[in-house]
Amino acid sequence: MKTAAIFYHAGCPVCVEAENQVADALDPARYDVEHVHLGEQSGRIAAAEAAGVKSVPALVIGGTAFHINFGAPMSALKG
Amino acid sequence: MKTAAIFYHAGCPVCVEAENQVADALDPARYDVEHVHLGEQSGRIAAAEAAGVKSVPALVIGGTAFHINFGAPMSALKG
Repeated sequence: MKTAAIFYHAGCPVCVEAENQVADALDPARYDVEHVHLGEQSGRIAAAEAAGVKSVPALVIGGTAFHINFGAPMSALKG
Repeated sequence: MKTAAIFYHAGCPVCVEAENQVADALDPARYDVEHVHLGEQSGRIAAAEAAGVKSVPALVIGGTAFHINFGAPMSALKG
């Protein structure tokens, strides 16, 4: 069974770079990578925060949050 | 030809987690991942900084530096 990975972003330049270079670099044979734009899917913010996400871009792999560089804090994504 | 990726770390807990969950998750069919312990290989610090690495753990993919969470600043690794 593949490991679930969620890449959280907000469409910012730092996010796009991390998406193209890190999230898309994961081994597709071992990981199912879902991409979530928190600016457009604010209903997913609570789950991201519960997983430990404090800023975007972030990659949650197997339940652990990894912040990749820094684009925007979660607070900036809340309406 | 595979893309070169270098995972820079210093053996810290945050580094080990990033190594096990992110660096080792890269697709081996597309990336050649080298692991460099900057605490033991201080001769590699200059090249890491030139690539934009400011703290460890960090992953340099195709010449671009991605800082993954925060373990230690580069200054802590210099004798």
